[in-house]
Amino acid sequence: MPCQSSDELKILVEEARICTKNGKVANYIPALGKAKANDLSIAIHYPDGRCLSAGNIEKKITLQSISKVISLALVLMDRGLDDVFGHVGMEPTGDPFNSIVKLETMAPTKPLNPLINAGALVVTNMIKGNTVEERFLRLLSFIREMTNDSTIGYCEEVARSEFETSHLNRALCYFLKQHNMMAENTDVEQLMDLYTKQCAIEMNCLDLARIGLVFAMDGVDPLSGKQIIPTDVARICKTFMVTCGMYNASGEFAIKIGIPAKSGVSGGIMGAVPGKFGIGIFGPALDEKGNSIAGIKLLELLSKNYQLSMF
Amino acid sequence: MPCQSSDELKILVEEARICTKNGKVANYIPALGKAKANDLSIAIHYPDGRCLSAGNIEKKITLQSISKVISLALVLMDRGLDDVFGHVGMEPTGDPFNSIVKLETMAPTKPLNPLINAGALVVTNMIKGNTVEERFLRLLSFIREMTNDSTIGYCEEVARSEFETSHLNRALCYFLKQHNMMAENTDVEQLMDLYTKQCAIEMNCLDLARIGLVFAMDGVDPLSGKQIIPTDVARICKTFMVTCGMYNASGEFAIKIGIPAKSGVSGGIMGAVPGKFGIGIFGPALDEKGNSIAGIKLLELLSKNYQLSMF
Amino acid sequence: MPCQSSDELKILVEEARICTKNGKVANYIPALGKAKANDLSIAIHYPDGRCLSAGNIEKKITLQSISKVISLALVLMDRGLDDVFGHVGMEPTGDPFNSIVKLETMAPTKPLNPLINAGALVVTNMIKGNTVEERFLRLLSFIREMTNDSTIGYCEEVARSEFETSHLNRALCYFLKQHNMMAENTDVEQLMDLYTKQCAIEMNCLDLARIGLVFAMDGVDPLSGKQIIPTDVARICKTFMVTCGMYNASGEFAIKIGIPAKSGVSGGIMGAVPGKFGIGIFGPALDEKGNSIAGIKLLELLSKNYQLSMF
Amino acid sequence: MPCQSSDELKILVEEARICTKNGKVANYIPALGKAKANDLSIAIHYPDGRCLSAGNIEKKITLQSISKVISLALVLMDRGLDDVFGHVGMEPTGDPFNSIVKLETMAPTKPLNPLINAGALVVTNMIKGNTVEERFLRLLSFIREMTNDSTIGYCEEVARSEFETSHLNRALCYFLKQHNMMAENTDVEQLMDLYTKQCAIEMNCLDLARIGLVFAMDGVDPLSGKQIIPTDVARICKTFMVTCGMYNASGEFAIKIGIPAKSGVSGGIMGAVPGKFGIGIFGPALDEKGNSIAGIKLLELLSKNYQLSMF
Repeated sequence: MPCQSSDELKILVEEARICTKNGKVANYIPALGKAKANDLSIAIHYPDGRCLSAGNIEKKITLQSISKVISLALVLMDRGLDDVFGHVGMEPTGDPFNSIVKLETMAPTKPLNPLINAGALVVTNMIKGNTVEERFLRLLSFIREMTNDSTIGYCEEVARSEFETSHLNRALCYFLKQHNMMAENTDVEQLMDLYTKQCAIEMNCLDLARIGLVFAMDGVDPLSGKQIIPTDVARICKTFMVTCGMYNASGEFAIKIGIPAKSGVSGGIMGAVPGKFGIGIFGPALDEKGNSIAGIKLLELLSKNYQLSMF
Repeated sequence: MPCQSSDELKILVEEARICTKNGKVANYIPALGKAKANDLSIAIHYPDGRCLSAGNIEKKITLQSISKVISLALVLMDRGLDDVFGHVGMEPTGDPFNSIVKLETMAPTKPLNPLINAGALVVTNMIKGNTVEERFLRLLSFIREMTNDSTIGYCEEVARSEFETSHLNRALCYFLKQHNMMAENTDVEQLMDLYTKQCAIEMNCLDLARIGLVFAMDGVDPLSGKQIIPTDVARICKTFMVTCGMYNASGEFAIKIGIPAKSGVSGGIMGAVPGKFGIGIFGPALDEKGNSIAGIKLLELLSKNYQLSMF
Repeated sequence: MPCQSSDELKILVEEARICTKNGKVANYIPALGKAKANDLSIAIHYPDGRCLSAGNIEKKITLQSISKVISLALVLMDRGLDDVFGHVGMEPTGDPFNSIVKLETMAPTKPLNPLINAGALVVTNMIKGNTVEERFLRLLSFIREMTNDSTIGYCEEVARSEFETSHLNRALCYFLKQHNMMAENTDVEQLMDLYTKQCAIEMNCLDLARIGLVFAMDGVDPLSGKQIIPTDVARICKTFMVTCGMYNASGEFAIKIGIPAKSGVSGGIMGAVPGKFGIGIFGPALDEKGNSIAGIKLLELLSKNYQLSMF
Repeated sequence: MPCQSSDELKILVEEARICTKNGKVANYIPALGKAKANDLSIAIHYPDGRCLSAGNIEKKITLQSISKVISLALVLMDRGLDDVFGHVGMEPTGDPFNSIVKLETMAPTKPLNPLINAGALVVTNMIKGNTVEERFLRLLSFIREMTNDSTIGYCEEVARSEFETSHLNRALCYFLKQHNMMAENTDVEQLMDLYTKQCAIEMNCLDLARIGLVFAMDGVDPLSGKQIIPTDVARICKTFMVTCGMYNASGEFAIKIGIPAKSGVSGGIMGAVPGKFGIGIFGPALDEKGNSIAGIKLLELLSKNYQLSMF
């Protein structure tokens, strides 16, 4: 078994923490900007229920882009592959996560994949339900089921703050609406409401690791034995985590680390080592691509020490 | 004097009308789609008050992009050159009028010129006034003064139709807002309300020719002798009409015709032959760049027959 | 064991062959254009020496882009990771394989990955040796060692034909040279000589499967027990095959098939099922992205029938 | 008459010279790098033969991009408008002069105009003649005729230096050749030989002003009365000088100065005030767009003082 004690983890965390000084906490949202730059914590969740951890794993963080892979799973279950991939592609892109260029230069105007903002907005817009509240509750229930934690909610302050400032996402929505990549009756403000709440769902590293575990076990919650996500959907999500999970640093991450993972600008990373365990990391200092700088270092140390790369 | 009789004009109109069959009426707005594809009319307005015309010059058309050059004049008068050109550039672009790409790929994110959509939205947003109504009335008063026609208004149906469908312009607005090219308190929906009303201002070819005349005479209304637009502002507007007035066909238009002009997707063209006369054209069949196909042909015939090119 | 008999393979080949009618043989090189559109053959090479096959596996094909992953392995061995990845990136790109755009729009001007043309040219230029002949022979020796076939050579007709026509690759070379991504003394014509010979190396499907086997076994030739490629280099190559091996259809390939693989415009595909076996496919009818249309279908059938996806 | 004495010019030159401290001499070619950053000189050539000047107008400078408008005139005379504009467009572009992006993103692959590098290379490639020498001599003879100076030649050192280093232009050539925008039998090295010699043609400011005069007089040499360039060709050239003559600062130049002009990275500017006079300027300190920083300032002062803007 790869890592046997929290003490081993603690040593790796201290080694990785050094590079937090080269990163920066996201400051475009006040609530995110309050994070301590040199924070770093990790939880590992095994199928047999054992958890290892290091750092303050009780701290709650918002999912931000990590939520994209969860909403993708839900929507693939809701709508089926053909419908979803008729509206969003499967290809990685060398562009920044919030780029709008390819929506204009490529025909048809279809987001290249569901983990860049344009694609994630299309996916969230496909969550079934009659109202924003109903759709959001379906996503939340899905997450509560994966984490087996019915107390999970969202941070209103972060959601409101992002709702007020994410003009770039509004630009993407209207561009996509113009090109019929969103349902004609899409109300962009309602979608922004839903999307910013989704991004503001908060949990601690243990919960995050538990979600990673469900993906690692092909959609089965190993503790209850329940198949929460169909196998093919779980695998598709893991594949996207490999090819597009770390924004436009995904290729390097695959080479150096080789673990399906998804990061968020809050500094969170959710990882899924296939068949083995789930990982939840929080390290708010980001590199220039928007990934947790110490979180990536920590995953690199883990991958090398315990030979976790898929490749 | 270049053209002495309406009969001469009529011959040119008939020759130019032939190419309407190679064009298409804009159909993205129902009200525009109702236009007759083979319509073509022209009015020429001399400084001494004489008007020549051919075709049905009583028909009212909406200004659409022609309005961009008028709002530019008003805003330059309102704000001064430094303020305006701090928010919008002076360079022609080889891209389509509604392109968003350069806003992302060029730093800083500043629309290349005031006659592409991104730039025109920035300009309209700078019209002074406390409410949409107040700002719109200021623009309308300015136009009424230029045309000496206090009955000029806007077409509600066209304005509403464009308001409901111009998601691409909303995308541009939010993108620009994100990059601080619009005042922080800009309400995009209010700006869209103002902009779509501006585009829906309607008049006939004679009025259009009269506006062209004011620009041709460096801002002076030759009939009243009043300087409606300062000379430098009128010249700046004419320069933009040469370098950017015909979307991404402006270069070819300068080479072949050489008259400062601005077109709109309604099929209108407003022309200003410096020191000589103003031109108003209506020909709703458009070429693939969005310019009146017969209108351009007619201007080419006029320019060649009467040697009107500035170059 | 996944597939036990050539008869099983033959059934899959016939099913996959149907879609050759939707593809097109590459015709920009006369020698490639002579291929029969409905050809399809496959060889599978197990670590224990057993081979399964279907179709005419004796037919020789040129490697084309398949060679990129082999030259990458050689250059990583020659130069080390730091040197190589100082000149070429690790990121997949949503652009076509021969695109030049990102070389200009991204700073610094570094090809995004070694499997697009720009990156492959940089890599081939790093093969050690004093002359084109010496460098080419080193690559050829490496390939002969991997295939255990000392008769492998290249097709002069194809090499010459590509040398004469690949102006786009010359454009990429000069662009890269201008931006110091190639050694200052690089002679572009010599590089083109080397690169077109590399692309024209020819072998049959069995040889191709044997190369795939070496990658599948982490660089070890299981028959001789020799480590031909260091483990980390072999894994890096497989990772690139997953993230970038199928041009800008790599993401979809990863989702649907999940086997590290590299295609070429000759219609060849080399696949490496980690720890299990190597695959060589020839199917010259290409889809619009430049991949063997029936070859991909065949791999999809294999992957689904025998659950070969890594994900 | 606009400017009556060299003394007036001298005052303007001293005022403009101040901004040389904000510019930089081009240093990518050693021969250009030797220029003195605070040099500034101007010659004005009137149709009646009178010349005004200020600064050291005997200093020889190489034409660089100024030559593009002269080769355009020659090729339009050689081939006619239809042939030339079948291979190069008429549209200004917001991109840098050496950009390759639009060649890929716009279909068909046609340089947007003849004054960006891609377009100029296409134009030079259309100069008639059997050998590089013959073609170059035709261009040189044309220039000697315009300047009435049979001693004009080219600087071998600059030509050789540019030949050895202009890999970006080679990239453009091969890209264009790939897309059939250059004759199939085009030898890129020969074209580079011809093009770098063209750019290295050298003359002093007086000669430059004399060329400007011929364009200003619609192609007629007012001293001999000879029509050296047909009127329409001269006008087309002047139009391009307005819309594209100052790289991607042409729009601002048209607004602020309004004189047809063409600059080169040597720091030269050739101007043509329609019907009035020709201008030759040398000021090697460049702004970030590659135009003579003090040369532009000087033209701005001239245009304002003597109201020379066309607009």
